[in-house]
Amino acid sequence: LTAYLLPAKNGEEPTIQFLLEMVDILTNYVKKTFDRSTKVLDFHHPHQLLEGMEGFNLELSDQPESLEQILVDCRDTLKYGVRTGHPRFFNQLSSGLDIIGLAGEWLTSTANTNMFTYEIAPVFVLMEQLTLKKMREMIGWPDGEGDGLFSPGGAISNMYSVMIARYKYFPEVKTKGMSAAPRLVLFTSEHSHYSIKKAGAALGFGSENVILLSTDERGRVIPADLEAKIIDAKQKGYVPLFVNATAGSTVYGAFDPINEIADICEKYNLWLHVDYIKTYIKLCRANSVTWNPHKMMGVPLQCSAILVREKGIMAGCNSMCAGYLFQPDKQYDVTYDTGDKAIQCGRHVDIFKFWLMWKAKGTIGFEQHIDKCLDLSQYLYNKIKNREGYEMVFDGVPQHTNVCFWYIPPSLRGMPDGDERREKLHRVAPKIKAMMMESGTTMVGYQPQGNKVNFFRMVVSNPAATQSDIDFLIDEIERMGNDL
Amino acid sequence: LTAYLLPAKNGEEPTIQFLLEMVDILTNYVKKTFDRSTKVLDFHHPHQLLEGMEGFNLELSDQPESLEQILVDCRDTLKYGVRTGHPRFFNQLSSGLDIIGLAGEWLTSTANTNMFTYEIAPVFVLMEQLTLKKMREMIGWPDGEGDGLFSPGGAISNMYSVMIARYKYFPEVKTKGMSAAPRLVLFTSEHSHYSIKKAGAALGFGSENVILLSTDERGRVIPADLEAKIIDAKQKGYVPLFVNATAGSTVYGAFDPINEIADICEKYNLWLHVDYIKTYIKLCRANSVTWNPHKMMGVPLQCSAILVREKGIMAGCNSMCAGYLFQPDKQYDVTYDTGDKAIQCGRHVDIFKFWLMWKAKGTIGFEQHIDKCLDLSQYLYNKIKNREGYEMVFDGVPQHTNVCFWYIPPSLRGMPDGDERREKLHRVAPKIKAMMMESGTTMVGYQPQGNKVNFFRMVVSNPAATQSDIDFLIDEIERMGNDL
Repeated sequence: LTAYLLPAKNGEEPTIQFLLEMVDILTNYVKKTFDRSTKVLDFHHPHQLLEGMEGFNLELSDQPESLEQILVDCRDTLKYGVRTGHPRFFNQLSSGLDIIGLAGEWLTSTANTNMFTYEIAPVFVLMEQLTLKKMREMIGWPDGEGDGLFSPGGAISNMYSVMIARYKYFPEVKTKGMSAAPRLVLFTSEHSHYSIKKAGAALGFGSENVILLSTDERGRVIPADLEAKIIDAKQKGYVPLFVNATAGSTVYGAFDPINEIADICEKYNLWLHVDYIKTYIKLCRANSVTWNPHKMMGVPLQCSAILVREKGIMAGCNSMCAGYLFQPDKQYDVTYDTGDKAIQCGRHVDIFKFWLMWKAKGTIGFEQHIDKCLDLSQYLYNKIKNREGYEMVFDGVPQHTNVCFWYIPPSLRGMPDGDERREKLHRVAPKIKAMMMESGTTMVGYQPQGNKVNFFRMVVSNPAATQSDIDFLIDEIERMGNDL
Repeated sequence: LTAYLLPAKNGEEPTIQFLLEMVDILTNYVKKTFDRSTKVLDFHHPHQLLEGMEGFNLELSDQPESLEQILVDCRDTLKYGVRTGHPRFFNQLSSGLDIIGLAGEWLTSTANTNMFTYEIAPVFVLMEQLTLKKMREMIGWPDGEGDGLFSPGGAISNMYSVMIARYKYFPEVKTKGMSAAPRLVLFTSEHSHYSIKKAGAALGFGSENVILLSTDERGRVIPADLEAKIIDAKQKGYVPLFVNATAGSTVYGAFDPINEIADICEKYNLWLHVDYIKTYIKLCRANSVTWNPHKMMGVPLQCSAILVREKGIMAGCNSMCAGYLFQPDKQYDVTYDTGDKAIQCGRHVDIFKFWLMWKAKGTIGFEQHIDKCLDLSQYLYNKIKNREGYEMVFDGVPQHTNVCFWYIPPSLRGMPDGDERREKLHRVAPKIKAMMMESGTTMVGYQPQGNKVNFFRMVVSNPAATQSDIDFLIDEIERMGNDL
């Protein structure tokens, strides 16, 4: 029983023994995750898991369980889960299981503290500050000056950018609300992440005032369309405030033409935010940047940063000066208490695993990892671009690791284009995906986009993946799709 | 080097060895944390840590470090941090180090997945659903029906409540923005957490439209003041929308009179949100509740839930239907894909540690823990209420574990009340706190409140704390404060 563990008297030994048994379960899981003879997942429907699988009961009860049962529960939790670190898991951009990052998370949870004050997180607060500065240097802001914070995910980081832009141009909204500002509009690509729309709805702009920009055939924003829509909004009496450009879009991996967009933002005095997948481009002209190390850099979830070029503006935007946390009469330099810059109060320590990975790999290690992923995507692209049974969703070499394609089963290959073929093709990817999950051999994402029916979206970010895993994926798609 | 770890060829052995060395560091840390001969912290100023402590360099570099250095970095990170699980750490409500919760976090980071779809987090998604239902049952909603989500902290949970209330009464704000609604006002206690003001500012209401309610001498909202302010707002042409009641306020631990507030909310058709510290009260009449298991229940940070009585309203409020995540043509029941209810996209798995602790302790285990904390607070209160050199900030037995008091050094005891005494007393708590941190023996919070000068706010939530630790705290305060 829990009662024998620390802080119980003589609790040391049972505690260490329990933790080591847990670690044994976890290290076995880690070993198997990298073993290609292990399945990616052991799929069950919700009702199956809810009914209970031999000895695994999800229901909570009034009475305690034994420690043995707790260990069984942990084994079962892993057994019925999905191995996101498996070399053949390609379902999301956050994939892979970095061992240093994992160790960093174990330490973070052991330290169990809170980023809101230097007082209780001195080392982590400084790590965050130094890491943010380094990131700002890398995107090209002079001397790495500026502001920033780690937040619980890219959607919240994007939300910060909209809030800060609003505060920059209409600071009175903080105290008086949106009625103190004119009708504001935000711009983002029709291919951009849905988080900008969510931010627009949440922050009181309204999702209809998030204006979607047309893209070219590669999914890149057309600058002339941005300018036309700015002019149109102004003519209708709206005030354009903010443009989100994407450097690595979710589906196509497209890079919006940032310099041309920056020119337009300068001309019309708009805030330029860039939602950024780590690569090599400079973003000197952005006013703010969302950078998610939990994507291409392979840092365990959650790890997302909002970076802002103007120093001090985050505190201006968000501070409320809570007396019980941010006492001005502390004995240390209280400018290190960053909590009042955040919309959160308690804030999880997301920095340590990232800092530790950076120490262990160096900047060059991250670059090598990204290069390797780009190479693998290129390999996949070359493999299927002229292969029978495949059609690419857009022409040309992908700009990032995203490779978007249709698999055309033999039964559809001779069929003329038209509604019937489209409807049938639309059902191919979901069927193959369902078979993949049920057999548990691999996972890859699919979706429709605009008027394009369901296609596979391959993304490579998993450091464990090799060319043989790409080959395996293609074999599986063909094996499963052949008779559709 | 990292290069020898998995997924490298023959990486299994070095990986397991590295992880076990890390676990050795962590289990030693755990043992020492519960050992009262260990310091709570080894305080250094920011500039000292930034300059670098023998062998501990926070700067990031281009080149990788050795694995040995990584382990040294981990040891140093813990060495210069704060032991929030130490029996004499009373600084915040989130304190203590629960061994089951810790093991749960280690598993969570090993599974490294994302709550947004059942597809990649089947077990965790179901655990969340069952746990939320159980929580709703406990607060008294019929059959535990309703809606909810775990969010990255109480401030975000409170923000959800405001968004959902706005959506309930003015759903068109989601698409059209705040200009589609009349001028809305929110109400919360002058003693309530600053997160309601932050939410008001962020969501476009404006912080001035968050109206603060007067409290009685115990820090409880005065219902008549709420009603008067509602009437006043209406007369000025504002539309009252939302009342936040606090069940366990941050500083005084006060419980607002929820039933009387609920009567007023019903009368004027306002949304009633309750910001809730786990206790035994029923909250049947609330429309939404924030419940933070990372506070009184001792669950590791972060673990916060927003609970909503009306089913389906969260999706209505927040959904944007991203095609690349929430495909309607999946093979399983996609109502289990909860991601579109959230303002986040990626969402960290906060449920598992809580679920595992619930399994290990049972509901009764949590109740016993809270009883123990209340007993200890009572012990502190009884010890100091008539002791020479102490003044209580408010009269009577605390409603929760908060005990708020001034320590009066001998030099101030004969001094008549007045500005001079107030100014001197204001400096006492910060000075004692600084000495505590520099000697590293214990930590307790302090702050001013309204016209009351700096006082100590003791909160008990740490399961490792005993009466002897309370005695120790008082001895330390007297030892350090005696000559001030």
